[in-house]
Amino acid sequence: MARILITSGPTRQYLDPVRYLTNASSGQMGVALTQSAIQAGHEVIVVSGPVHVQYPAAARRIDVETTQQMLAACLNEFSKCDGAIAAAAPCDFQPTQVASDKIKKTGEPLRLELTETPDVVGTMGQQKKSHQWIVGFALETSNEVARARQKLQRKRCDLIVLNSPTAINSDRIAAQVIGREGRVLLTAEGPKPEIATRLLQLIQTELIAS
Amino acid sequence: MARILITSGPTRQYLDPVRYLTNASSGQMGVALTQSAIQAGHEVIVVSGPVHVQYPAAARRIDVETTQQMLAACLNEFSKCDGAIAAAAPCDFQPTQVASDKIKKTGEPLRLELTETPDVVGTMGQQKKSHQWIVGFALETSNEVARARQKLQRKRCDLIVLNSPTAINSDRIAAQVIGREGRVLLTAEGPKPEIATRLLQLIQTELIAS
Repeated sequence: MARILITSGPTRQYLDPVRYLTNASSGQMGVALTQSAIQAGHEVIVVSGPVHVQYPAAARRIDVETTQQMLAACLNEFSKCDGAIAAAAPCDFQPTQVASDKIKKTGEPLRLELTETPDVVGTMGQQKKSHQWIVGFALETSNEVARARQKLQRKRCDLIVLNSPTAINSDRIAAQVIGREGRVLLTAEGPKPEIATRLLQLIQTELIAS
Repeated sequence: MARILITSGPTRQYLDPVRYLTNASSGQMGVALTQSAIQAGHEVIVVSGPVHVQYPAAARRIDVETTQQMLAACLNEFSKCDGAIAAAAPCDFQPTQVASDKIKKTGEPLRLELTETPDVVGTMGQQKKSHQWIVGFALETSNEVARARQKLQRKRCDLIVLNSPTAINSDRIAAQVIGREGRVLLTAEGPKPEIATRLLQLIQTELIAS
């Protein structure tokens, strides 16, 4: 039995009190992973952005809104966990300045400078102890496998799940799971609960039992 | 009995295949208004952005994602309606350029130019015939009443419902309803279904019966 941190859902980065940047991540993959992990006898802590899905009651749920909040919650929990599955899609750009009043329309273009948010998985990767493992997710739209391999290396992940925008807010996912040596260990397409179960089996053999 | 177009929920404006600008509008006020209007014997067409709420089955629902889609659906329906209640919060800025690939992180700031989206209520206001009416919503964070009055004039609304960001994604709303002469006709705070019913009563006396 392992203690597993699962991140799930999107985050939001506000421009002003009303408008924000985000993505359509629904949390469905986070739910499926949580269910599979609990069924396999693991203890689960879910750090989730704003979603409308329900996580299994057996998991401890920590709600966050921004990427900074997700990072803070993850760093706080990860040191007490055996591993992490980072299924969340944190918003990775934030407006450099956040307006305290709602930005008014003037008829002119609005120039916005965005800076990168802190890298949640990359920061966990830096703090990872030798007994710990991290499964990252990569959502790519071009040069997919090469980019996923780079991400795995850069973020010090142990496995990375490559998927595409078609998985966002869908009940299905097409995924390739890549290992530390860059080898594709699993290629699968199907309902998220089914793919989650297969991923948990792979985590068991590759990361927990080894 | 009137035929009423109700707009509801947020819209999304994409930067790239994954990231978009939006707001936390939940569609709850749209649901409450639809229920109240149907209970009052009206026919309702709902044009809704992406939400997780359910509209009454007696209403006809048209789903849209972007502000341009919301505008197109509204213009198509409004000419066949007696009036419109514009409770949606359409995203009013869009990236001037939409990237076909997911924008990569480079470590450098990302400069984004946003342009205004078409004004859904303002465009309906321009096309409004003398027998038709429009109830707009104004969400303001400063100089609220003055701005709401300007909005009512500029968009050729017949009533405007002034509310604040605290109403977004909440089951309550604090609202002031302002009439064509700029007078505050109703000040109310409470659960959205209750305020929706009072607003429909006001629409009946001020716009339908008159």
